[in-house]
Parts: sequence; structure tokens; C-alpha cells
Amino acid sequence: MSTEQIPHVAEVGWAKHLEVHPLSPLAASEIVRAADFIRNLYPSSIKLQFKAVTLEEPEKARLVPYLDAEHGGRRLPSIDRKAFVSYYIRNTDKFHEAVINLSHGRVESNVRLGPNVHGPGDAEEILLVERIALEDADVKAEIAKLHLPDGTAIVSDPWIYGSDGVNDDRRMYQNFLYMRDPNDPSNLNSNHYAFPLPISPVVDAVDLKVSRIDFLPTGLDHSTRPAQPVEIPPANEYTPEHQNLRTDLKPLNVIQPEGASFKVIKAGETGEIVRWQKWEFRIGYNLREGMVIYDVRYDGRSLFYRLSLSDMNIPYADPRHPFHKKAAFDLGDAGAGVMANNLKLGCDCLGSIHYLNAVLSNDQGEPLPMENVVCIHEQDAGIGWKHTNYRTGHAAVVRNRELVVQSIITVANYEYIMAFMFNQAGELTYEVRATGIISTQPIDDGLEVPWGTVVHPGVLAVHHQHIFSLRIDPAIDGHSNRLVYEEAHPMPRSDFNPHGVGYTVQETLVSQSGGLDTKEDSNRVFKIQNTSVRNPINGKPVAYKLHLPPFQKMLADPDSFHFKRAEFADHNLYAVKYRDGELYAGGKYTNQSRGGDGVRAWAHRNENITDTDLVLYAQFGLQHSTRIEDFPVMPCEIIKVSLKPANFFEKNPALDVPPSNQEFNRSTLISEQHRQPSVEARVNSKSEVCCTSKL
Amino acid sequence: MSTEQIPHVAEVGWAKHLEVHPLSPLAASEIVRAADFIRNLYPSSIKLQFKAVTLEEPEKARLVPYLDAEHGGRRLPSIDRKAFVSYYIRNTDKFHEAVINLSHGRVESNVRLGPNVHGPGDAEEILLVERIALEDADVKAEIAKLHLPDGTAIVSDPWIYGSDGVNDDRRMYQNFLYMRDPNDPSNLNSNHYAFPLPISPVVDAVDLKVSRIDFLPTGLDHSTRPAQPVEIPPANEYTPEHQNLRTDLKPLNVIQPEGASFKVIKAGETGEIVRWQKWEFRIGYNLREGMVIYDVRYDGRSLFYRLSLSDMNIPYADPRHPFHKKAAFDLGDAGAGVMANNLKLGCDCLGSIHYLNAVLSNDQGEPLPMENVVCIHEQDAGIGWKHTNYRTGHAAVVRNRELVVQSIITVANYEYIMAFMFNQAGELTYEVRATGIISTQPIDDGLEVPWGTVVHPGVLAVHHQHIFSLRIDPAIDGHSNRLVYEEAHPMPRSDFNPHGVGYTVQETLVSQSGGLDTKEDSNRVFKIQNTSVRNPINGKPVAYKLHLPPFQKMLADPDSFHFKRAEFADHNLYAVKYRDGELYAGGKYTNQSRGGDGVRAWAHRNENITDTDLVLYAQFGLQHSTRIEDFPVMPCEIIKVSLKPANFFEKNPALDVPPSNQEFNRSTLISEQHRQPSVEARVNSKSEVCCTSKL
Repeated sequence: MSTEQIPHVAEVGWAKHLEVHPLSPLAASEIVRAADFIRNLYPSSIKLQFKAVTLEEPEKARLVPYLDAEHGGRRLPSIDRKAFVSYYIRNTDKFHEAVINLSHGRVESNVRLGPNVHGPGDAEEILLVERIALEDADVKAEIAKLHLPDGTAIVSDPWIYGSDGVNDDRRMYQNFLYMRDPNDPSNLNSNHYAFPLPISPVVDAVDLKVSRIDFLPTGLDHSTRPAQPVEIPPANEYTPEHQNLRTDLKPLNVIQPEGASFKVIKAGETGEIVRWQKWEFRIGYNLREGMVIYDVRYDGRSLFYRLSLSDMNIPYADPRHPFHKKAAFDLGDAGAGVMANNLKLGCDCLGSIHYLNAVLSNDQGEPLPMENVVCIHEQDAGIGWKHTNYRTGHAAVVRNRELVVQSIITVANYEYIMAFMFNQAGELTYEVRATGIISTQPIDDGLEVPWGTVVHPGVLAVHHQHIFSLRIDPAIDGHSNRLVYEEAHPMPRSDFNPHGVGYTVQETLVSQSGGLDTKEDSNRVFKIQNTSVRNPINGKPVAYKLHLPPFQKMLADPDSFHFKRAEFADHNLYAVKYRDGELYAGGKYTNQSRGGDGVRAWAHRNENITDTDLVLYAQFGLQHSTRIEDFPVMPCEIIKVSLKPANFFEKNPALDVPPSNQEFNRSTLISEQHRQPSVEARVNSKSEVCCTSKL
Repeated sequence: MSTEQIPHVAEVGWAKHLEVHPLSPLAASEIVRAADFIRNLYPSSIKLQFKAVTLEEPEKARLVPYLDAEHGGRRLPSIDRKAFVSYYIRNTDKFHEAVINLSHGRVESNVRLGPNVHGPGDAEEILLVERIALEDADVKAEIAKLHLPDGTAIVSDPWIYGSDGVNDDRRMYQNFLYMRDPNDPSNLNSNHYAFPLPISPVVDAVDLKVSRIDFLPTGLDHSTRPAQPVEIPPANEYTPEHQNLRTDLKPLNVIQPEGASFKVIKAGETGEIVRWQKWEFRIGYNLREGMVIYDVRYDGRSLFYRLSLSDMNIPYADPRHPFHKKAAFDLGDAGAGVMANNLKLGCDCLGSIHYLNAVLSNDQGEPLPMENVVCIHEQDAGIGWKHTNYRTGHAAVVRNRELVVQSIITVANYEYIMAFMFNQAGELTYEVRATGIISTQPIDDGLEVPWGTVVHPGVLAVHHQHIFSLRIDPAIDGHSNRLVYEEAHPMPRSDFNPHGVGYTVQETLVSQSGGLDTKEDSNRVFKIQNTSVRNPINGKPVAYKLHLPPFQKMLADPDSFHFKRAEFADHNLYAVKYRDGELYAGGKYTNQSRGGDGVRAWAHRNENITDTDLVLYAQFGLQHSTRIEDFPVMPCEIIKVSLKPANFFEKNPALDVPPSNQEFNRSTLISEQHRQPSVEARVNSKSEVCCTSKL
């Protein structure tokens, strides 16, 4: 670190206080500076491969007073601006992580990691590995044996190698090969997943060579065949150009004639504050998690310190080599932020849309601009509440408006549509839609296997699990919270319960860190409580409850690498005591990980989590037993996790939502005279009384 | 039956063939005729109280050939038109049911029911009972002891009496009393549920007198107090006029400039056929079930013979007299059809709406016109499927359009919003939204009880369960279907599964009628299969799978009346062999029922249900542990049951949905320059390429 940097540092120090919020993602200039600090540690002859240059979030002990001062309108304390950098010495296995103090212009730490700690894939590396696999002479020789038509395009999907403990200390990629439709060679968007090939080259990520060529089992057992001529099955395209499209779908437009109800306030160069219907929160964005929601408040009251998708794991059912290693950690192995789609108006959202851009980093440590990676819009979610007084016929009804903060990622064959949704009743929902193309492999004709479904001639879609972990760092009216679960139990028969119909709802305190499960038979519901703040009407501690959908836990056995690595996959919920730097349920580095570094390990510290700063990891997912309807592209499967107030407010917080009526909603009456519902709007003249009905 | 009716009958016979479909609900003229047939059985001095005059649906053995001929364009067989009538000899307990053959103008059957078989309440009777309770001198004397301010309006909510086996052979009503806000006497829509009174008169439904006055326990035990002066708590109103409404919610309109995509075809005087996006089905409507969906087909292939909400039960947690009898069967005790709201444009739906009317019957056996009881509209349900080719940046995305067939019922304090939803991926969802005002009772100040929550000073909202039963009469590619369930199980470790990661998905046949449950740990999913029709690609039997949400089963013990009466409430699913006339999971007459007449009893016949005409009753619901946010009116709780194809099609059936793009969706870009998102539409000029993005 050279002295002439000091004025520069001071300048940045000032700049920070003027505009940079401690939670604002790194700006392009900060990414450049951080990478320079690392480069300057080495002679110029040493080339680096950057995996991440991202914000090192402030310690909570410093940030909480800052946020309190911010909301209290007091003078803001100074918080150093820091960058986290992970990188390889290029073409080696020397993986490092470092922290740069940008405010004081120094490298605070820089350590080499490992052994068996591997960085994630990056876009440049993945494209390079594809090329290496396809240009390898031995691979070409094997492909030649398939006797494919001249000009057939081969496609390689590099897969993270996974871990099985067998010669996998080096970082590798397992490449699955496909071809584009040989009968339509010019179609660059041909669905190659309809043409899986039985050859699978393994590429070493250090010396960047094909280290092994696997042949895939295509029968009922582990046996494989040498490459031999393959039959060409029919194509199975998903693109609209290849369909006879429906002609009877009429447009449906969402119009907000007076604009949207939300405000997006740019917080300096990066990061935004969103205000909508008494909600206020901050949006961050990083390479690994994508969207991060910070400092969530409703009507000025604190609810959550930080919300993000922490991890996901997708283990597959086929036990045969090399498929037994398929267990993707899409966030830790690649990154939700860097895989985000550039969202387009009219395609990914409907209505009045606001888009957010982000800036990440590439393998050179250069800023990587990401346009339209988050979209924000309102949507109508049906009736919010209604009651009709049957004696007077007076009906009161409001609709439920939602604010959607959405991002979409593409992970090779697959897509995830992720959204944080806020509503007017103080409810917050995290939604995942699973879509895209299911992972395929070749299977011999006429075979059926219990670990997958044939979705196209010669094509097997193996069953798999999607297991997600949503990280919830609560701050319900403050940072001292506790976790309880509520259960409903029958009353025993007694003089008090002579007819055997009574039941009670009881709370149980979760005093220690650990893994917990829902229980349908007792309707177990988890609640985050603040016992120091009581509901003024009924005296109960203010709380938010967590609605977790059912899901089948990790099917791989507890001694398997799948199970050890996916440290969150065995319980609906993990509860731990907060520690700075612990963000990822599956561990900080999931690529070929061996486990022991994630939330299961943290929970085993058996720390007291009563009335303290606790953090929850909420798991949800789906056991995807494949069906032919999931091919060539699957209809969305939707999963939701919800957080709802429980004695946090004094009454229904959506009580003050303006009533739903025709002046406001401008609906159209479809004329009953027409067999085909007509276009002409017949605005109800009786809109004044439109919410009156008689039983 | 008199001879001069014969020509009239023949005429009706012809009329039927010309326009009346066997599934069309009774027309007004048919209701009049059917009631006349019954009246003519008695001297004019005998007054009748009609409970139902509704369509007696044809035997399936006759209707199936009719529907086949109808869809095959062949000559239609003749099916007699019949009416079902249930009635009391007025002011007696003499309850009858009869079947009238309208085609041949004769009474086919007319039998007196009972003992302990009671008809449901009807609107006229309920209003009468309210008056009787409030005008009773003894009740007035007790109310006087409360020392309420002059002019305080008392409100009586008559409750179905329930059964506990204690002196309840006669049909009775338990009236719960409330007052409107004494400080605002002119407010007819005051939320009286904020002012529960401790006096509860019981009205005998036969002699129409107050037979008993109960005093409600307001403490921690069974003890009650004589009426004494009460304190007046503050009001807690839900109506918009009493709120400081939010001012920052901007309008959101749904516009279909070219009209809606669905067709509604009137099928004669009553009943409709709906066609939308390859779906075709028939809508019926009756007093008990409300909406009924018949003969559901997709792309010409048969899926379901009949779908309806079969029953619901809401047992409460308070074991104390008289609350221990609160266990409402809203369909069987009153009727979803007759309690339906008159839906208003802009209030209950958003967009381009088509309304359906219905005609039911009143207690005089006269036609009761029901306007706008069903609304039909399309809605956007977000992205339907998407894939981005990361190599070319080409993205294909379609939105998921849904057709919603919705009805809303008000049951005194409570509302249910019910909807059948169809989508473009061949999926059918039944949704219930629970809203309205939770049932309240008085509680002494400062008390907490484990069977409810204080939601307002002096007001207890008791915990309760909502348990619904959806009747599914499948016809998956025909009427010979079987029920299987699919489960995912780990493979044992072996040479075949050396790493312990493999798992299999297996099917188990349900060969006999019975009650079944889901199983989260094995991801048990039920499927309706037709083994005689195989998927042409993978040879699997065509099937639809049933997605059931978790819910806590009936908490009352198996010896309790609650449990015996709610014959569906103890399993996620009941599967039985079809029999004509078996439609209601809780039995045909639920009012003060004793059990033994519903789906549990039918299941105990242990009939073979393999490859035959089976019927499913799918249960779902919620354990409603009350929270203060549910008062004075609760935000919707949403529950869904879905039916999805499983190897029924050859690929994703939504593949041919036109792509989502800006020309079609006309979304609006909110200018980033504006802090407050701007209104001006900036239609994307690059809409041609709007679905192209680069990873």
C-alpha cells in the first residue's frame, strides 16, 4: 500500500459520508479500486482470476446504531467502507479471500484458503470450459463414433463437479454433451436437451484440459457402452417459432393511469430505498444472492434487518456415476446475482414497471454492469377482505394490492423466478417459481426406471429435489427477539370438556439454536416474538408468524456427501444466534464442498437464542417427480413462504385501504347479449351503490 | 296427478328436447310446477314450509350416454326431467323429501324423514327467529338488567343448534346477542361483533317460541352470572366511513381492449356452457352447493364429470356450554347457493367481467331470483413458463392466463370467496379465501384463555377450524379410473447406490374405498389414472394428480358429536365408489345431525375402486388460531387445491401460448428520472427484440 493513495482514500472517506450508505452495493469505482489493491499485492507477471469483488457488509454492532441514527434523524456515525474479494492466482489452485478497507485504503486481510475450498464458477470460465471440452481431440474422436450427420452442432453444458470423496480434491467440471437438431442446423435456439449424448468429458479447472472422458449409463444398471452410432430422435422445440400458436387469446393490459403507488429513491450510486403503502426497505444486490432486502419497516416500526435467499440445492435421484454427483448449489457454485436475466418490458412483468440495474464484477475484477436485473411493480391480488351486513345489504370490500420485487435467473437449462411480495395487511411473502428445461440424459429405447421419467424418445428426465433456504434476520420492534412455536392440541375429556370438543393453542419456546420442523398434526406455526413489546389491547408479545409450506427433506442418506454438503436440507427451519459473516446456509464455498461449514454446524453450537439477536433459515422446496408435461419447458411450479403479523398491530392493518369500487377499478361489464363477450365498456352507473348487496 | 296435466307434460317433454339440458338447473316455471305438485298432495288448509326445490340430477347411467351422444353429435336420448323437493308441514317437525317427474307429471316419491333428521335453515325462518328472540318478554327483561343506554339496538345472530345428544331431538336455534354501538345508534352498519352480550336465547323452530335463555360463561370456567349492568367498550368499526383511509394508493385497471377470450353459451333458460383456451365445461347452480362444474373437457378430452364444494365444517375450541355446540355446516345447514352475494362490478372482480344469474326457491316454494351470483373473468397469473438460451440470449416467455369462476357467500358474520380457476397448462385449481368477521363472545376484563384470543376489550375470538370438502367426480379419458399415490423413497445403500444418494418414485394402488392421508416425509401425491389409455411417448397411464395442502384434522375426539357429524374431517382424502345421490360428505341433512350418513360411512362399505367409477372427496382447511389482526374484519386467508396433468399430454400443454411481448402486454416503463414513478407510457420501441437477453 503506497503513501500517495492516502489523499485518495480521504476523498473516498468524505464521499462516503456525503452519499454512500453503508449498505449500498459497491460502485464501479469501488470495484476497480478493490481489485487494484489485490493486483498491487502481486508482481504484474502474476495473473489473477477474480471470483468476487463485492461489499463487505458492516458488522451489525456498527450498523444498527447507524440505522437508528438514520431513522431518528440524528448525526450518522462513521462506518468504514469495505470490499470483500475472492480470487485465484490464475491457472493454479491457490484460492484467496481478502478484505479491503476502502475508507482507509488498506488491505485488512488476505488469506489463502483450502485445501478442498474451491471458488465458484464464473461466466468466463464456464464458456472457456465448454470450448475446451468440445475442442479436445479425444472428445472429438468419441463424438465421431456417434456417426452424427455432417454439420451437427454439439453443445456442452459444464456442470459443477459435485463431491463424492473419490479423487475430487482438484476443482473440475463435468460436461454433459448434447446436440442441436441435426435436421435444422441453422436453428441456434434448438432445444439441445432433447438430444442428450452418452459422452461426458471432465475438464480440470486448473490446467484447463480434459482429464477424463466418462461414458454415461443408458440402461438399467451402471454399465456403459463405448460410443457407437446413435439414432436421431425427433426434435422437441419450445420456442414460439416452432409452435402452432393459439389464436384465441385476447390481450389483457394492466394500466395505472395515475402512475404507480410506490417510490424508489436512489441511495447514491448504488442501492435503492423503496416506499410503498407504509412499507419502507432498502434493496441491495450482490453476485451470490442477487436481491437483498435490508432494514424492512412498516409504518415506522422495525420488522426485519436483512432478508435474502441464502442458498439452494438440487440433488438428483440417479445413483449411477457420474450422475450421482449432480447436486447443484446454484447460488454458491455460480451466483444468483450474476445469472440474473435482463428483464424486458412486456415480457417478464405486466403493468407499470420500474427496473433496477446493478454492477457486479467479472473474472478480471472489472465492473460488470447488469441492466434491469430487478423489476418492481404493483399487482392486484384479488379481494383483500370483505364483509356484507346481510341485514342492511351493506358490503365493504377492499382489494389486496401487492408490491412485487422480482428477479429471474437462468442456470444453464433451468430458470427460477424469485420475488419478495409486500401487501397492505403487513404481510411479506417470498415466492419462487421453478421453470425452464429439466435436466436430461440419454436412455435406451423402451426402458422405464424408477428414478426418472421418459419425456421424449431416448430422453430421461431424472427426478430431483429443489431445496431452498430463505435467510430471515428479524428485528421485530427491535433486535432482541425469540422464537416460539404455536400448536393446537385437543383438550382431554374432563368435567371441563365433557363433550370432547375443546382444544387449546399453546406456545413453546425454542431456547437453543438448532433445526426444527413443522408438524401438520398439531398445526405447528413458528413465531418471532419480542416479549419486551406488548400488544396494548391483549397484552400478548408482538410477533410475526412464519408460514412454511411442506416439503420432503433431503432424500440422500445422512452419511452421503449430498446430505453433508446441503447443511440446511434436513429441517424446515434452522434457528441460530447472529454472527457477522454467517450468511450462507450451505457454507461460504459450496463448490465441491465437504460440509461442516454451514447452518447445521452453526446450530450445533447450541447457543441460547432467547430474547437475543437470532437468525432464521427457512427451508422450502419441491420433490420434482418429472412428468412429460415438464418438457420441453416446464409450466411454473410456485412455492411461497409468508411472514404475517400475529398480535403485532391493534387491528387488521388493511382496514384503512380505500374500498373497492367502480370509480377506482373501472371494470368492464361483458354484455350478456353477446355470445362472445363484447368489448364495449359499460361502466356501471350505480357505482355509488355498487358495494351494496342483499342476502 | 290429474289427467288434464298430461298434454302439459308432453309439451314439457318436447321443450326439454328442444332446449333444456338434463343438467340445466330448474327454471322458475319448473320450480312453480314442482311446488304445486307437492301442495296438491295436501288440503289447502295445510301450509308447507319449503326447504329446497331443486334439480334432481339424472342417474349417471343415463346421463353418460347422453353426454357422449352430445359430444359425438349423435341423436340425444330422452332423459326425464325431475325435481327434488324437501319441505316441512309448517309449524310441525314433519320433514319430507319428494321427487317429482316433471316430464311425466307425477310425484315419484314423497316420504317423511326422521326422527332426528332436520331440514336446513332458510332465510325467512332465520329472520323470523331473530325477531322471536328479541321480542320475547323474558329476553327483554334480561336485557333490561344490562342497563344499556336508551335506544341501544340489540342484534340477534341465530346459530344452528348443533348436536350434543342432550335434549336436542327438536330443531332449535341458539341466538347469540350483540348490540350496535350505543354511542352511534343511527349507524345500522355498526360492527355489533365488538359488543357481544352474555345472554343467549334458544328458540324452538317448531312452536317458534323462546324455550330457554342461556347465560354465557365469561370467565375461566363454566360458571355464569345473572344479567347485570355491563360496561360499554369502545366501538371497532370496519366500514370505510369510519377509517382514515390511505390516500397514496393509485388506481390499477385491467383492460381487455379486444374483449375477453372466453365464451359463455346460455344452455336454455338456466345453466351455461363455458369455452376458454381448449377448456369446455358446464356451470350449474343450486341452493346447497352454489356453483357446480359439470362435464369438464380439455381439447375435447374428458377430465371430470362433476366438481363442487361438497361440504364444510367449522368446529370451535371452547368446550363450555353453549359454545361446545358451535360446529357450523354452512352448506348443509343453510346453503352456499342461497347465501351468495350479488356481485358488483368493480367491487368483487377486476377487469372484463361476465356475471351469471340463478334462480332458487324460497320457503313458499316460489322462484327466488339470484342476480350476479357467479362472476367469470380472466386474470393474469404471472409468468407461465420461461427459458433463456444463455448462449444466444434468446428468451422465450409466456404468461399464465387464468379463467376464474367465482362466487362469494356471506354466512352471518363470515365470508367465503370460492373460485374454480383454469389455466393454459391444463391445470384446474379450487381456491377458497376466508374473510369476514370472526365469531365473538364476551370475556371478563384482564383474562387470557388458551382457546381464544382477546381481539378487543371484553371481546374473545375463539379459535376454530375450517374444514372443507371438495367433491371430485373424475372422468380421466373416460369413467373407468383408479386412484394411486406416488411416493419418493431413498434407495438403500448397495453396489447400485454406493454413495447413498439415489432415490426412487413409486406408485401404490388404492384398491378399496376409504380415508387416506398425505405424507410430507415421502411426498405422497395422489393421482387419478386411466390405465386403459397410455401416454404415446412413455407408455404411462394417463393421469391427473391432486395437490392437497396440509391441514390439521378435526381436533374434537372421535367419540364427540363434532367428529361423528363431520364425516370428512379426519382425512385429507376419501375415495369411494360412485352411487347416484351421494353428493354431500357430511351427509344429506347436517342440521343437528348425528353422523353415519356421510362419506366416512360410504367408505366403510369397503368397495373395490380399481378401474371403476370412483369419486374423491378432497379435504383442506385451516386451523384458525385467532390473532388481533383478524378483527374487526380479517384479511383473506387463501387455500388452494390443484389438479394437474401427469403424463396426460405429450408435452407441456401451454407450449402453444403466444409469447409474452410488449405489443401484446402494453406495459409501461416507469421513468427512472422521476423519484415518484411517472405516468407517461414509454412503450418499448425495441419490442421486437424485447424477449432477448444475455446472461
